[in-house]
Parts: sequence; structure tokens; C-alpha cells
Amino acid sequence: MKQSLDVETLNTMVVEAKKYTKEGVVADYIPALGEANPETLSIAIYRGKGDCIAAGNIREKFTLQSISKVITLAVALMDHGEEYVFSKVGMEPTGDPFNSIAKLESNVPSKPLNPMINAGALAVTNMIIGETIDEKLGRILSLVHEMTCNPEITYCERVAKSELDTAFLNRSLCYFMKQHGVVKGVVEELLNLYTKQCAIQVDCYDLAKLGYVIANDGKNPNTERQIIPLHIARILKTFMVTCGMYNSSGEFAIKVGIPAKSGVSGAIMGSVPHGIGVGIYGPALDDRGNSVAGMKLLESLSSRYDLSIF
Amino acid sequence: MKQSLDVETLNTMVVEAKKYTKEGVVADYIPALGEANPETLSIAIYRGKGDCIAAGNIREKFTLQSISKVITLAVALMDHGEEYVFSKVGMEPTGDPFNSIAKLESNVPSKPLNPMINAGALAVTNMIIGETIDEKLGRILSLVHEMTCNPEITYCERVAKSELDTAFLNRSLCYFMKQHGVVKGVVEELLNLYTKQCAIQVDCYDLAKLGYVIANDGKNPNTERQIIPLHIARILKTFMVTCGMYNSSGEFAIKVGIPAKSGVSGAIMGSVPHGIGVGIYGPALDDRGNSVAGMKLLESLSSRYDLSIF
Amino acid sequence: MKQSLDVETLNTMVVEAKKYTKEGVVADYIPALGEANPETLSIAIYRGKGDCIAAGNIREKFTLQSISKVITLAVALMDHGEEYVFSKVGMEPTGDPFNSIAKLESNVPSKPLNPMINAGALAVTNMIIGETIDEKLGRILSLVHEMTCNPEITYCERVAKSELDTAFLNRSLCYFMKQHGVVKGVVEELLNLYTKQCAIQVDCYDLAKLGYVIANDGKNPNTERQIIPLHIARILKTFMVTCGMYNSSGEFAIKVGIPAKSGVSGAIMGSVPHGIGVGIYGPALDDRGNSVAGMKLLESLSSRYDLSIF
Amino acid sequence: MKQSLDVETLNTMVVEAKKYTKEGVVADYIPALGEANPETLSIAIYRGKGDCIAAGNIREKFTLQSISKVITLAVALMDHGEEYVFSKVGMEPTGDPFNSIAKLESNVPSKPLNPMINAGALAVTNMIIGETIDEKLGRILSLVHEMTCNPEITYCERVAKSELDTAFLNRSLCYFMKQHGVVKGVVEELLNLYTKQCAIQVDCYDLAKLGYVIANDGKNPNTERQIIPLHIARILKTFMVTCGMYNSSGEFAIKVGIPAKSGVSGAIMGSVPHGIGVGIYGPALDDRGNSVAGMKLLESLSSRYDLSIF
Repeated sequence: MKQSLDVETLNTMVVEAKKYTKEGVVADYIPALGEANPETLSIAIYRGKGDCIAAGNIREKFTLQSISKVITLAVALMDHGEEYVFSKVGMEPTGDPFNSIAKLESNVPSKPLNPMINAGALAVTNMIIGETIDEKLGRILSLVHEMTCNPEITYCERVAKSELDTAFLNRSLCYFMKQHGVVKGVVEELLNLYTKQCAIQVDCYDLAKLGYVIANDGKNPNTERQIIPLHIARILKTFMVTCGMYNSSGEFAIKVGIPAKSGVSGAIMGSVPHGIGVGIYGPALDDRGNSVAGMKLLESLSSRYDLSIF
Repeated sequence: MKQSLDVETLNTMVVEAKKYTKEGVVADYIPALGEANPETLSIAIYRGKGDCIAAGNIREKFTLQSISKVITLAVALMDHGEEYVFSKVGMEPTGDPFNSIAKLESNVPSKPLNPMINAGALAVTNMIIGETIDEKLGRILSLVHEMTCNPEITYCERVAKSELDTAFLNRSLCYFMKQHGVVKGVVEELLNLYTKQCAIQVDCYDLAKLGYVIANDGKNPNTERQIIPLHIARILKTFMVTCGMYNSSGEFAIKVGIPAKSGVSGAIMGSVPHGIGVGIYGPALDDRGNSVAGMKLLESLSSRYDLSIF
Repeated sequence: MKQSLDVETLNTMVVEAKKYTKEGVVADYIPALGEANPETLSIAIYRGKGDCIAAGNIREKFTLQSISKVITLAVALMDHGEEYVFSKVGMEPTGDPFNSIAKLESNVPSKPLNPMINAGALAVTNMIIGETIDEKLGRILSLVHEMTCNPEITYCERVAKSELDTAFLNRSLCYFMKQHGVVKGVVEELLNLYTKQCAIQVDCYDLAKLGYVIANDGKNPNTERQIIPLHIARILKTFMVTCGMYNSSGEFAIKVGIPAKSGVSGAIMGSVPHGIGVGIYGPALDDRGNSVAGMKLLESLSSRYDLSIF
Repeated sequence: MKQSLDVETLNTMVVEAKKYTKEGVVADYIPALGEANPETLSIAIYRGKGDCIAAGNIREKFTLQSISKVITLAVALMDHGEEYVFSKVGMEPTGDPFNSIAKLESNVPSKPLNPMINAGALAVTNMIIGETIDEKLGRILSLVHEMTCNPEITYCERVAKSELDTAFLNRSLCYFMKQHGVVKGVVEELLNLYTKQCAIQVDCYDLAKLGYVIANDGKNPNTERQIIPLHIARILKTFMVTCGMYNSSGEFAIKVGIPAKSGVSGAIMGSVPHGIGVGIYGPALDDRGNSVAGMKLLESLSSRYDLSIF
């Protein structure tokens, strides 16, 4: 990245991108998310060894939502290896919406197409090793703590509860997969764990560090210790490119070209290979569930500093 | 019906049809159903005012399974009227399997295509008026009692329990419909009621009388009292023709032409308009879920006695 | 049918039903059809041996369109027998639109669900025996002549041409089926024949007689000669009930209960089993392609004279 | 790329990968392709300024097939710009097969999901500017000539003819899109052009240079002249990653991570960003249409020389 990416420039870019917040709306299908301020936009960029620049209120907290799918996939891959994980969940992007059930029925045997759609993410969460929900969640949180060097991170009970109460579609997906042997055990426990994982609460600074570890081939941002094996970090980046931005993944890859994963909280985690982690929070979403202003911000970053991997 | 349909003829026809039991297999997706004897075949034909002929062990009991969808639809139509019921559930046959979820997703707004597929039947059961599961079930059973003049009929707890434990696909359908506002209330209670309704236990004689009331425009087989209004009895017969035999409904209408509804227990209820009720039990099923020998028996009855409505 | 169905009553019913013409629109996807007068509504009822009553301008001509599917199916069944015909085309109704291609792809091996949707009708027309298009069409027309006792009936070249020029969707269906071996030979010749068959031009009186022969188990309206074998006439009536009115077939069966087939010209042919043929023309269509006022007229006929087969 | 990639190493790698040819079969749906020798495997790697290493019979000719979709997309984007092209064809990967028609029907308005599936590629070819088929093809060939510095390249008439004769599925897709206004003009002319484009005949050396120009941000391999604008070269690479390897694109991105496009002739073009073009020919295909041994060769190249973009 060129020298000129300093705080002033970043501030200017946030101001420019902020006007796009008006084109989106805050997610309201999870009641607790509906309270977010749609005009918010903040970003942190982490470049390793403590080098972080930021703009906006980067200490504002939000939940990971679908971004947690990337973290949980890392845990499952470390727990079970690629062969097992991808015997249950595919590796292919899909043109269907993230919460679609149709392909689970039309594909025989039933198999979620990839770990970034809800069906696939639920199947991955179902693989996390642990005796209890708390132990499983603890293992996911441990990885988050290690990646961010922030042991304080936990989940927001209120959001998790709100999501669990209304997760009828995810229940439908789970029971469908249980029928077909894709998920095992008690569905309510799986949903309990899944909604807690989605409700892990971070700020932009934490998120940038999560993105940094993935960008940096799995190494700790400070100590350079290998937290996630290199080949798994690569798998995560690949899914972020092919399926990270819901049904705009293809367009985003073309226009921005930065591996990224978004969540319906309005968060986006970006991982520029070999060196930059990005954490964005802008809760006004487009009709596909991505932060409108967040995507614009990444687009202008990519074009100004030539960050596309293509 | 011609004079010649007597017990001897019926016995001969059952013997002939019985060889087809070898072409089917007993349903095993509900464990308690898997215990049935696949070679069984029995039939009762009720022609009103006590005139009943039968062949095979017509006192053997079995559960209604999908045949209960017809009874519950009658209750819902009497409770709410056609306009309300058909605002939630369609009237059109479908080429999809009875337990398919795809159309619930692709049709916007989500609406089960008809009350004979599982999604539609669950939505209809969800309409039954009552404070408790017991009260709702009681109202369904009351209609069964009145139609059969047999107040002893109840449901089989073991089958209901077995079905409830494994009804993952129906749970999936329910939660999907709950997400879209097609069903309301607590899903587990709905499934509890639905599996009990499916587990209502009858014999061929009872089943023939159920079919007779529908054939006889809703009138009591003995007293001629109007149990179900004429126009509702007609609706039931129509659905039995267009969607009564799962994905063989069209073929069955062509080859047999008798309004009929089958269940995965191997039961078939037939209603020859204006006068004949048929109850058949033959648990060996074809790959679409219909009693193989039962269908053959109805086919030879229809062709020998010219019973097709077409 | 009760005595009271006389011309005056019929005229009154037409006047009442005519107001529904305002709720529909004339088909315009085939340019030549777009010129019809949407306010038209006429009906002929044929009861055999020359007994015909009518209302409206029953000598106005229109094209059969999808009604021709019933006639062609009769020819194909007489040419090849049921086993062959139904090895290529199914017998099951479908919840998909009449021109849908999705099921041809998702069903393996590819097979149109029934002969009343476009894919199935094209496959049936492809079976008609003959050296040339003219010879094949001649055989279809011969049956029409015999059924109506009207040897003057032919097709409208202008409508056929207009339809052939714009039949892109039917071409798509044909080539898809050619890929999968469901249709054989030159697609353009098949479409040429199919659009001519659809453009066969009749009036309400002719149409009532076509419906009468089917209602009357295949016998000539005057001579009682068996034009179509009884079992084939029954098959036709069955398809008219389960799939005759596009995606309203189920609702129509419930509300009206008369075997009927509609066409996008606004025509409806009705066949009340054992004795009445109905020919209706009312080109204002609902969004599913059925004559709005025509359906209302059949509904009031059915309820007033108790014509439902159920 | 490390020094050690020399001809000897490459030869060894080809020998190792060659055993996988036994796991595939030659495409036979296009008759002329069925004659290829399934045991063939050859590769050329172009690193600019004449630096090329190769193994196997790299002068053997084969047709581009689906690889031509990338070239034609470049022409269309240069002709019309991104906004127009992507108003007709989407940018999203799909989990459906490359020749699927279902999404064209279920997505309203109808729009092919991306330019790498057949529907999308046909729509793109339909955009190529020119008065005649020859002129349009000439413009595609011109780009190929310029990219390869080989003005001799033309198409194979025999393969084009063979493909045109049997392209029923592509005809079906075209007519479906014509119905919905996605393609314009005469379908047979479009297919004529499309099958010729697919039949453009190259060798591995040519193919490596095609891949090199795309890898090298659109610049001529010798002169460094900008043949394709940078942002378009990037779009091509992106589609190669998200949809280049049919329904294995996601898996290939994870396992190999090199932007690549395959064709059913058994060819694969690879473009390692910023510097390497790869041309592979190995006609034994897996069940998704990709060269089995070709993919293995790319996988071992990528892992040995760390070529993944992720």
C-alpha cells in the first residue's frame, strides 16, 4: 500500500462514502439489530505490529453475524481437516440467496453448497468439538481472542436471544439437514450455539485484526505466531472471494477484488493478502444484506491503492 | 353398482390383487409403521344403511396417516369457511413430491399449493379451533366418530410418538411456514397435534364408512343426517381426485377414476360419488407411497363395475 | 339437466356473466389474437341429436389454441395406444405454469408432466402419424370434422403464421426436448404443425359438439357412431379435470366440477359426462389465461343445474 | 516463480499428472471432439518476452470451446463497456450446471447469472459488433491474433459444423432468451457464430500466450502494448476464479488458486497474475467437464511454486 494512506485521507474517504448510508436500511429481521444508527460508518485498517489507522467511531461495538462463519470454519477445519469438513459442506458458490433451502432439496444427496450460506454455516457449527454449548462457544471465542489479542471479546446475550427467538428459517434449514443426516444432535442446541456465535461482539479495531490474521496467512498480528495454518487461511480467503458478500460476491470481486466477508449487522471484514486487515461498520444495508457505504469505502480503497488481488 | 358385487367376487378380486403386495415395501421412515405385515390386503365396501361387504381381515387396525388430511380439511372448512382456508392454502395440484419444500420458497408469497401435500395439511391442522391440543384433536375425532358411528376410535399413542420423534422434515416445513406467516403458534404443538391426527386408528370397515359419508354428499351412513355440508363434501372429493394419491393422482384418475386418498400406512379411502365408500388396507407401498395391491384392487373394481366418475 | 335450461335462461346468464369480461384482457402475446373484442361472450350447449341452445353471437369464429391439445391427444392415443404415449408424456398435473421449462430439466429423465402443458402437447403433436405436415394436420382436422359433422373447419393461416413467428418459448421447449430425445425430427416442422393445430378455427356451435363427443364417451352426436374409443374419451375428460384450465384447474374443479379445456383465444370447451357439450367464447382472459366471463358462465351453469361430477 | 521451474521439472510433472488421464473420458456430446486421444497431456508456460517452457506435444491443435467465452467477453466489454454488458448478463457465480436453463426461468426478469455459463456466453456473443457472422468472428479472431502474435489462428470448420448440428440445448437457451429480450436477431446466426468461436483452433503455446496477456494486465507478450484495457483484464481474471472451471470453480480456487478457464476439448488456460500464462491440453475430462490431468498439473504447479493468488 502506498505511503499516502494516512488518517487524513481515510477520514476524507469515510466522509465521501458516508453519503451512501442513505441508500441502505438497517436489518430489522433480527429485532435487536434494528436499533442501529443507519448513518454510522467507521473503519479500521491494521497493517501489523501495531500499525493501525482508523476513521469514525471505531470503538462502537457490533456483532459479527455472518462474519463469524469464517471464524467457525477455521475452527472446524483445524478440528477435523478439509476432507471431513468438505464431505459435509461443498466448496462451490451459488446464485441462490444465503438463506435458500431449495438446493438442499434438489441436490441428492443433500449437501449445502458452501460454508458461507446459512445451511453450510449451520452444518459447520454443528462440527465444532465440545461437550457443551459453552465449551464449543469457548473454543470459537478463544480463536477470536488469539486473533485479536483481545481476551475481553464475548457475545451479546440480547442479540443472541433476539435472534434465537426469531430464527425460524434457520430452524427450518437445520431440521431439513437433520432429516438428511447433514447435521446431528439436538437442533435447538445447534441454533443456540449458532446465534451466540453470530452475536460475538467486536469493534472495528478487533475486526481489522481478525482480517489481518487471515490476510497474513494465519499469523498473529504481533507475535507472527501461526494461529491458523497457512493452507486454512488460504481457504478462508478463497471463500471470502467466491462467496463472502452474499449474492453480490461476484460483482464485489470484480469491482473491489479484496477478499471480504460481510454480516447483516453492517460489518465487513477485509483481508488484503500479505498484509492488510480491514474492519468496517456501517449498518445501512443494500437489498442483498451488505453494508452499502462499507462496500463503497472498500471500492474506493481498492481503486486508490490498487488492492485488488486480480 | 351391478348386482354381481358380492362377497365371493370380492374375495376373488382380493386374491388376485394380493400378488401385487410383493411389488411394494412397507414404509419404514416412521419406525412404528415398519412392523406391518406386507402381505396383508383387506377391503370393506359400504353401500349405506348397513350394507357392507368385505374381504380379508377387515378388523385389523391401522392408522389414517395422510387420509386424515381429508378429515381435518373438512373440520377447517366447517370452522372457517372456504374463503379463509383457501387464502392460506391453495387449490392446485402439484407435480412435486408430497413433502417438498421448494415451492414454499419459490412461490411469493409463500403458500402451500394444496391441502393434500404435507405443507398444506400442516397449515390446515394449524387452523383447527380449540384451546388445547386435546380439544383440537377431540374435535377431529368427533367428526370421525360421527362419520363412522364408532365412538371408540382414537389415536395410537405409539405411532404418534414414533412419528413425532422423527418428523424432521415436517418440522422444517412448519418453521419455514412460520417464518412466512403461513402457520402461527408453537410449532411443536402443531406437530404434536398433526402426528396424533395421522395416528388415528381405524379398521377397513370404519374407513369405508368415512369414504361413504364423503361419497354420499356428507350425509350420515345410517341416519342420512348431514354431517358435512354438501359443498364441502364435494371439495373433499375433488381434492381426492386431483391430489389424493400423491404423485400418482393423475395416473390414478385416468386408470381408476374413483375419488380416493391414500396414506403411508397402506390405507386407501375411496368415495364413489352418490353411494359407495371403500376402505382398503395393504401396507406394501410403491415408490410414491401408495398401497400397490390396494390400487390394483380399486382399478379392477372400477373397471369391472364401471365406477369411474369420468 | 333440468327442464328449465332454455334459451331465455341462457341469455340471462350470459348477460349476467358478461360484466366479468371487464376484469380480463385479450391475449396479446400472439399478435393476431390481440384484435379480438374483449366484450364478446357467447355460448352453445349441445345435448345430442340436434338439440342445441345458444346465446350470443355463436357464429363468430375463433381459434382452438390449447383446446386443440385434447383433440391431438385423442389422435395420438388412437395412433399409438396409451402405453407408448404415456412413456413419453406423463399423466400428472403440475403446479408450474403451462409454458414452464424448469421441470423438463429437473426431472431425470426429462419428461413433460402431462399433455396439457405446452411441452407435453408438443411431444404429443410430434407423435402424429403422417408423411408431411399437411397429412398430419389433415388427420387432426379429420377427427374435428367427424366430431363436429362440419367438414368445412380448417385452420386460420394468419393466426398460425403470427404464432409461428413469435413462438420462441415453444421453440425453446422443443429444442430442449430434442436434446433429451423426447421429440424427434425437425423442430421447425413440429412447430409449423403445432401452430396450425392451435389455429384451427371453429365457432361455439362446433366447439359444443367437440365437447359433446367427449362427454358422450366418444360417440358421434348424431349417429351415435363411436368416433373415439370409450377409454380414450375418459382419459380426455380426466385430463380436462386435472389440467384443463391451466393453473386454475384445481380451483375450477372445486368451484365448477365440469371437465373443461380452455385456450388463450378465450374459448372453453366443456364436457359434462353422459350428455352435454359446451362451447364458450369470451376472449377477455384472467392472468392465468382462462376466459374470465367464460368461467363465470360455467360456474353459474354448474351450480344452477347441478352439473359437477363430484 | 522460482528459478527451478525448468523443462526437466515440467516434464517430470507432466509424467506424474499423466496417470490421471485414465480417470477421465473424452467429451462425446460433440461428435468431432470424441476422436481425441484421452492419454494426451501437454503444457506450455509463457513468462513473457519469448520465455516459454513446455512439455508434451505442444504443437497438437485443439479447439478453445468454453475458453472462447473469456475472449469474447473481452471483445464485448471493449465494444460496449461494463455497464451495458452487465445489464444483460450478471456477475455472480452459480451452483447450477453450465448449460442449465432453470434460473433463466426463475429469475425475473430473465438474466443469465454470468458470462461463463452457456446462456451468458451466448448473450455476450450476441453483442459482438459486426454486419455479418464473418465480420463478427473476424473481430474475435483479430483479438486472438494480437494476443498470441499468431495471425494464422482460425476456427476448425469440422468441429464448428459438428457442434452446430447438435447444439439443441444451446438453441433452447437462445430461444428462451429471445423470448425474454435477452438476445436479439436470428438465433441460427448467433449459434453459427458461437459454434465457430468455440471451434477456434490453437495449440498449447498459443493458449499460454492468451493466458499471459490476461495475466499481464492486458499487455502484449512481446511489445508490452496494451491490447486489453487493465480493468477488463482484471474482470476476466475474476470470472476465471469465480466461474472458470464449471461446477468445480470453488474447489479449484481453494486447491489451486490460479485464475483459469477450461473447455470441453480438454484445454485449460491459466493466468497467474502479473506474469505467467499457462496453456494445457488433456482431453480426458471429469464429470464436470474439466481436464482431469490438466487440473492435477495446475494443482502441483501451484503448490510447488506457490502460485495461488490467495
